[in-house]
Amino acid sequence: MTPFTLHTRSSECAARRGEVRTRHGIFQTPVFMPVGTQATVKAVTPENLLEMGAGIILGNTYHLFIRPGHELIRRFGGLHGFMNWPGSILTDSGGFQIFSLKDLATITEEGAAFRSHLDGAKLFLSPEGAVQVQESLGSDIMMCLDTCIPYPADRRQAQASTDLTTRWAGRCRQAHSNREQLLFGIVQGGMYADMRQSAAAALVDIGFDGYAIGGLSVGESKTLMHEMTEATVPALPADYPVYLMGVGTPADLVEGVWRGIDMFDCVMPTRNARNGTLFTSHGKVVIKNARYRDDPAPLDATCTCYTCRNYSRAYLRHLFVSREILSYHLNTIHNLHYYINLMDQIRTAIEADCYARFRNDFYSRLTDQ
Amino acid sequence: MTPFTLHTRSSECAARRGEVRTRHGIFQTPVFMPVGTQATVKAVTPENLLEMGAGIILGNTYHLFIRPGHELIRRFGGLHGFMNWPGSILTDSGGFQIFSLKDLATITEEGAAFRSHLDGAKLFLSPEGAVQVQESLGSDIMMCLDTCIPYPADRRQAQASTDLTTRWAGRCRQAHSNREQLLFGIVQGGMYADMRQSAAAALVDIGFDGYAIGGLSVGESKTLMHEMTEATVPALPADYPVYLMGVGTPADLVEGVWRGIDMFDCVMPTRNARNGTLFTSHGKVVIKNARYRDDPAPLDATCTCYTCRNYSRAYLRHLFVSREILSYHLNTIHNLHYYINLMDQIRTAIEADCYARFRNDFYSRLTDQ
Ligand SMILES: [Zn+2]
Ligand SMILES: [Zn+2]
Repeated sequence: MTPFTLHTRSSECAARRGEVRTRHGIFQTPVFMPVGTQATVKAVTPENLLEMGAGIILGNTYHLFIRPGHELIRRFGGLHGFMNWPGSILTDSGGFQIFSLKDLATITEEGAAFRSHLDGAKLFLSPEGAVQVQESLGSDIMMCLDTCIPYPADRRQAQASTDLTTRWAGRCRQAHSNREQLLFGIVQGGMYADMRQSAAAALVDIGFDGYAIGGLSVGESKTLMHEMTEATVPALPADYPVYLMGVGTPADLVEGVWRGIDMFDCVMPTRNARNGTLFTSHGKVVIKNARYRDDPAPLDATCTCYTCRNYSRAYLRHLFVSREILSYHLNTIHNLHYYINLMDQIRTAIEADCYARFRNDFYSRLTDQ
Repeated sequence: MTPFTLHTRSSECAARRGEVRTRHGIFQTPVFMPVGTQATVKAVTPENLLEMGAGIILGNTYHLFIRPGHELIRRFGGLHGFMNWPGSILTDSGGFQIFSLKDLATITEEGAAFRSHLDGAKLFLSPEGAVQVQESLGSDIMMCLDTCIPYPADRRQAQASTDLTTRWAGRCRQAHSNREQLLFGIVQGGMYADMRQSAAAALVDIGFDGYAIGGLSVGESKTLMHEMTEATVPALPADYPVYLMGVGTPADLVEGVWRGIDMFDCVMPTRNARNGTLFTSHGKVVIKNARYRDDPAPLDATCTCYTCRNYSRAYLRHLFVSREILSYHLNTIHNLHYYINLMDQIRTAIEADCYARFRNDFYSRLTDQ
């Protein structure tokens, strides 16, 4: 049974408004999921996330597997109990991080052998192991272990990797024992539209609780990313949630929704916050710039976040140049609020069936993003 | 007119229970003031401080003078407006920090010439300038510019420095224009009891809104620190607040109160929090220790802070070894709550006139602090 309920469909594009039910509640889609790599969304508390309206966050299996270990987390009531988060949690499979280790990883039919980036310890993750680790973490949405295709990749290389991902997806589905935890398949296929469509069909044959589009935003052009999204979404069943992994900028989210995406995650709002780059309705603010030294205005006059309600740009600049921890806290609250509020506006626009106008307005407000 | 109201006096020792009124409200004494060096108490928000019951915090004039500058802060409604803090603020004079610069500072009768530790810029602070800077900062309690005596120091050196501090105190009082901002004098005198008593008498002749004991906790033994406190407090007027600067450990606070101190400040709870050393009613917890890896208990079962209400030692250890920003936030909330709650318990014990028993119980609970 699908966890997805469709509310409204745009008459202008593939955008859709719905909700996903997990054992930790319902979240509204399209949704942005803040990234909480190491059992914490960096620099904010669970209460901060709830106040800004986050319904689901993402955890990274690779990092948690290495430290503190999924068995420890299981004994603490899973990630929810360990980190004190009452909402839904999606965990990735670890595949992307393992592939990012480059020389430290070896991929075989059986799974991925790799070394910990912390202490060099030899580790191994099979598709079955990835499901078992995520079951221990207590994730509401688990992801199949996938392989990652370098960009660019020739057709033969992309096909081999995609086929392995599909075989691993079948093994993940077999290993999936707790059906209250949802399991999503991941469509790879590199930058080959037909390969992505075949991969999607194969995953649909296996049958998952939702489908993700992986391997995009890896260096290709925006045009190519949009093409691949457009080729893949129609190959997936309309009554299941579709998740575009690791994407992206505010504009990427607006474009993804236009093409039918329901779920997004990205480190951009949290990482940029710590680097002092802040998202506003008029574009990016680089808070260390001298022009903000004396600026009494909030970051974004239209923003209702804790940071904008209470602090000036001058104060935020002072904290950032002074490398104060409060800087990372206040900046992260604002950037995540910006992303979550953007998704809220997107959902309202789809409900009112004026998403095309919303998208135009979004671009016309931006000055440099 | 004194800002101090005495409530209760211990029948067993010099401890006393009272309150101090500033233009930003009343705080209860004995009090601990969290240190907010750069217009932020490191790693926590003003709301966190209010929730833990902080009534007054401390700002560092030297740091704010250098960055972002007192004129900028004045334009933002003083420190209160700039950092969004509604309670009282005490600022030090900058003297201690300037002296800590060692080779970068030159002291003359006129004032202190020094170089910014940030960019080497040549700066000068006179006693009058220190008051003017603090008036711009909008401090509720300002401190006179003082000189610091190295430890150990011979009698001649200590006397010369103490006399200069007293002359500067007179100039600060003359320069003090906004009488709604309180001004405290600082008793120096090194480790010479009679010198401290003469310095105290000279300051009382000038007349201040409160008196601080400076130049302690600089490397001398606890016994010597207590002796100096015992020699100085009786030389100060009983109807004015007495502040022991830069002190100290929880035991130092208990001992200071015993000897008649009303106000304390120290970076220890905030700095130790960031180093992973946490105060509990049973002693210190070094959270990175492997023994806490699997520990489901809160830091301190008797603590009611946000951190102890919601997180295990195992989670706090994970955050600390993972160098997550949330670690500094949660640890700081706990340590400051510990200090503020300790003062609350101290006040209750003085009211019940059982401070001697409280002090005994305090030591008997400790295992290693
Ligand atoms: Zn904001
Ligand atoms: Zn606590």
